[in-house]
Amino acid sequence: MSIRVTVDVVIFAIREAALQVLLIRRGVAPFKGRMAIPGGFVHENESLEEAAQRELEEETGVGKVYLEQLYSFGEPRRDPRGRVITVAYYALIPGDRPLHAGSDASSAVWCPVERLPPLAFDHEGILCYALERLRNKLDYTTVGFQLLPRKFTLSELQRVYETILGRKLDKRNFRKKIDLLKILRPLREWRHTGRKPARLYVFLPKKFEKLKDRGILFPF
Amino acid sequence: MSIRVTVDVVIFAIREAALQVLLIRRGVAPFKGRMAIPGGFVHENESLEEAAQRELEEETGVGKVYLEQLYSFGEPRRDPRGRVITVAYYALIPGDRPLHAGSDASSAVWCPVERLPPLAFDHEGILCYALERLRNKLDYTTVGFQLLPRKFTLSELQRVYETILGRKLDKRNFRKKIDLLKILRPLREWRHTGRKPARLYVFLPKKFEKLKDRGILFPF
Repeated sequence: MSIRVTVDVVIFAIREAALQVLLIRRGVAPFKGRMAIPGGFVHENESLEEAAQRELEEETGVGKVYLEQLYSFGEPRRDPRGRVITVAYYALIPGDRPLHAGSDASSAVWCPVERLPPLAFDHEGILCYALERLRNKLDYTTVGFQLLPRKFTLSELQRVYETILGRKLDKRNFRKKIDLLKILRPLREWRHTGRKPARLYVFLPKKFEKLKDRGILFPF
Repeated sequence: MSIRVTVDVVIFAIREAALQVLLIRRGVAPFKGRMAIPGGFVHENESLEEAAQRELEEETGVGKVYLEQLYSFGEPRRDPRGRVITVAYYALIPGDRPLHAGSDASSAVWCPVERLPPLAFDHEGILCYALERLRNKLDYTTVGFQLLPRKFTLSELQRVYETILGRKLDKRNFRKKIDLLKILRPLREWRHTGRKPARLYVFLPKKFEKLKDRGILFPF
């Protein structure tokens, strides 16, 4: 009985005020020319995560990132080459990481999740699953803050949330919730880019952890 | 390159006031005679979950259960037979489900998670991972209530939490938290088993969902 195992890696970033995902154009059959999530077969002597890191590097030039295992997809007919089970990983990385396409793929490109092209295999399903997981993570991790500079305005914070969630949030409600949580420290510094100066804040990760321990999260 | 794929199934239940896990004694090498999590190789034409349900049935006689995928374990040297990647599933089932040992395993037994025997392969690691996931789920799902009868006392509820968490909870604190959440409706009925009658309650799943939407969870 011959089952083969691949890894696939969903890489998200916020770029140009949109949540984008890193895709490659397949250089070989099946689905030659179609866009796909970076990935490939697991080698004999590497762990699943090592395989994911290697494929990501080879196909996109993105170096080592903090990957989380997402899910394993194993429907019998998901790959026309035969029985292939894939272990999917995902990560959210800063939008300015450099890319270079490697040998397996003819090109790696960022693509807004709201405007996906047709994808190879069951990659659309894998991507939707990763997106749902990422959005859930906003509630109980500091993932939203990791994408901001150390000092940020409330508008910048709201924009990160809106971008990952893919929808507008009410400004008054957003600020009321943030206020209640007391996880930000206001600084005596202002950003002078908009029409009027906007106060800068820093995130207080320890307060966030305490809220989590008390069972209070951060949903919008 | 030959990688083989198995599924392993961690089944928890509360039995005799303890969190227990369903183990089989291996009838064949490797690790012949050693206790292990039920599982086995994925067949050509079945999905991963179908394989998990089949192995569970064959090895323990537990019929169809609601399985959740836990994690895929794929360290290169985790199995002495060669490269084997396993996709682990888990479930929490009622403690009175009947068992019968099938053909692959010489026996299936319940074992308290606090008194595990030495296990085959990396099964101790898989089990610890499942236990952590189950304990986390107490915070944001109704898993704790699914194990209770429709009408229950606060002591019975506390005992379910204590059993899954594997530690005692302060009775006053527990009741204060439950009170604040307002997810139980007190009945005009009492249980007359202990020294004094204990009031019965029913769980209000809709209130629980609303709390979750507001970001308030249920941690102890």
